This record gives sequence, C-alpha cells and structure tokens, in this order.
Amino acid sequence: MDFTEKKISEELEFDGKIIKVYTDKVLLPNGKEGYREVVRHKGAVAAVPIDGDEVIMVRQFRYAAGKHLLEIPAGKLDSDDEDPEWRIKEELMEEIGKYPQKLEYLGYIYTSPGFATEKIHLYLATDLVDNKKETDEDEFVEVVRMRFEEALRMVLEGEIVDSKTIAGIVRAWYKFKGGF
Amino acid sequence: MDFTEKKISEELEFDGKIIKVYTDKVLLPNGKEGYREVVRHKGAVAAVPIDGDEVIMVRQFRYAAGKHLLEIPAGKLDSDDEDPEWRIKEELMEEIGKYPQKLEYLGYIYTSPGFATEKIHLYLATDLVDNKKETDEDEFVEVVRMRFEEALRMVLEGEIVDSKTIAGIVRAWYKFKGGF
Repeated sequence: MDFTEKKISEELEFDGKIIKVYTDKVLLPNGKEGYREVVRHKGAVAAVPIDGDEVIMVRQFRYAAGKHLLEIPAGKLDSDDEDPEWRIKEELMEEIGKYPQKLEYLGYIYTSPGFATEKIHLYLATDLVDNKKETDEDEFVEVVRMRFEEALRMVLEGEIVDSKTIAGIVRAWYKFKGGF
Repeated sequence: MDFTEKKISEELEFDGKIIKVYTDKVLLPNGKEGYREVVRHKGAVAAVPIDGDEVIMVRQFRYAAGKHLLEIPAGKLDSDDEDPEWRIKEELMEEIGKYPQKLEYLGYIYTSPGFATEKIHLYLATDLVDNKKETDEDEFVEVVRMRFEEALRMVLEGEIVDSKTIAGIVRAWYKFKGGF
C-alpha cells in the first residue's frame, strides 16, 4: 500500500551547527493535511574495526544520553556528497589510530525515522595498520578493545545500547563469520 | 576515564509537539566551555510480537526518511512516568490487533545519542490473543507477517533499516532461541 506523504510547505524552526529543525505541512494519504516535525541531519558513517579476534571501540560521554557509551567509531558527514568511505577512514585514524586497508559495506540504518532524517552508513573495517591522525582537542574518547564475541554478547544482552553500534556489530558478525 | 560534561545553561530553541530543541552551554572535561544541540524527546517503547514461527511487523511511510519502512510496533511515551508495558500493550492492540499475555524486557537503546535524548525500551511479546483497538484515523499502517528467521536475515543483510527494529529483532532472537 502507498501511504506516501507529500510536502505542502516547510518552515525552518532552528538552524544549528549539527541539526536543522523544520515543521512541514504535508498531504496525508487520505487527502487531509498533516503536520510533521523534522530534524534534518547530514547523516553519518560508522565502522566495526576488527583486529584479529578483537573489535576496537570507543567510549565517550554522550551529553544527550547523560552517560558514557561504548560505540563503534563514527563521524558525521559534512555534506550530502561527501564520500562515506573517505570520511570513515579519517575517523578511524583519528579515533583509534588505525587505517583500514579493507572496507566492506554493511548497509545503512535510519536511527530515528519518526522525526529525524539521520541515515548512518555502516562498514566492516579490516586489515588495519597503525596510522594515527591528530584529533580535535575538544574530543574526549577512550579506545576500548574487546573480543568480538564479547561485544556481540553485550549487544544481545542489552549492555551496548547505541543503535548504530548494535546494527554494526550484528551485521559485521554475520559478514565476518559468514552466518550466525 | 570520566569525560562527564556538566550543564552551565540552556536555551529553548524549538518547542514542538514531539520534540523540544535546546542549545546548552556545557563544561567540558578539560575545563573549557562547549556547546551542545540537544533534541529532547520523551522516549518510546517497541515490541517484537512473535506468533508461532512468525513475527508481526508494520509497514508505514516515514516522512523524515522519505520512504516506507518495515518496523516492529512502537509508540511514543507521553510522559516520563508513563508505564512502558502499559503503553506497548495499547500499541500492539491498535497496530496489529493483538494483546500480549507475556512481555519480556529486552533492554533499551539510544537511537541517536550524539544529539537526541530518545531512549527506546524493547520487549519480546508472546502468547498473543486477538484484541483490536481503534487507531487514530490519521495513522496509516499495514500489518506484515513474516517468518522470524526471514526478519533476522533482513536485519543482517541490510534490508531492514530502522534502528529499533534491528535491535529488537536480534535481542528477541537471542532471548527466544536461547542463543545464536
């Protein structure tokens, strides 16, 4: 069934550095008018870096969540036409000091499609070689290595709670192990 | 390591029906001041309804994503103290016409902790009995049944892209099957 909603008009409500917020008037499938709050975000890219039988993650404070979270390395895209593979290579060198000689695409996710346009591309990063790039001085990130199987357990038992990390770990496991 | 950021002040930028957007001035771990854009959202609850060897999902148009997505049933919480189990029972009756006699908690996720407070509680819903509640007339949802194993494959191969659905399906599979 086709439930497509068409934009009638939009209003910019907040123009931030990372997000822009719009209220859109839309045409609903029943011909009525509806109202949508939309957080527009340029999207992001994340990778699951595998080194032997370990995955390399990062632990950082997430202000919106109010706590430290364990996540796979990731970075925001700066524009719609930025190459996600170039971006994630930069992020891996900055966040964990590794350059991936091999990247395999794991598809994308929508983090919160009820109100946000954010789409995150996911990769499996392997054949890692040391290559450290300087980070922003205001970025506070701790590198955490653990067995890939332990990370999978933490995802499945609810100890890893970041949505892109959950999707990345399970898709990487499936690709890397060739099944479940 | 403790990278906690403390709020210095906040400014309300957009006061919507579903989201509120703030810009907060924060104290960074290095003693400097930082700036955070925060989308505050009351959170949500979602469930993976299992009926025999099938999972019951919903397909709906997601305006922010610009496409139809296949998702597990879910609903927003209306306040911080609303009971998530009560809310998801209501949603299951409205969206798929089933009441779950058994709910098992699968933990929570943060959908997009870089900018949004949204936290989604996940449940495995079983022992389903028919019980249809009327929906909002402006909600357009198609019920989709498929084999649980097929849904898992779609998650892992990137055909299911909604983050809460990915987390719900893999955690439900793990709990329901007792492993991978």
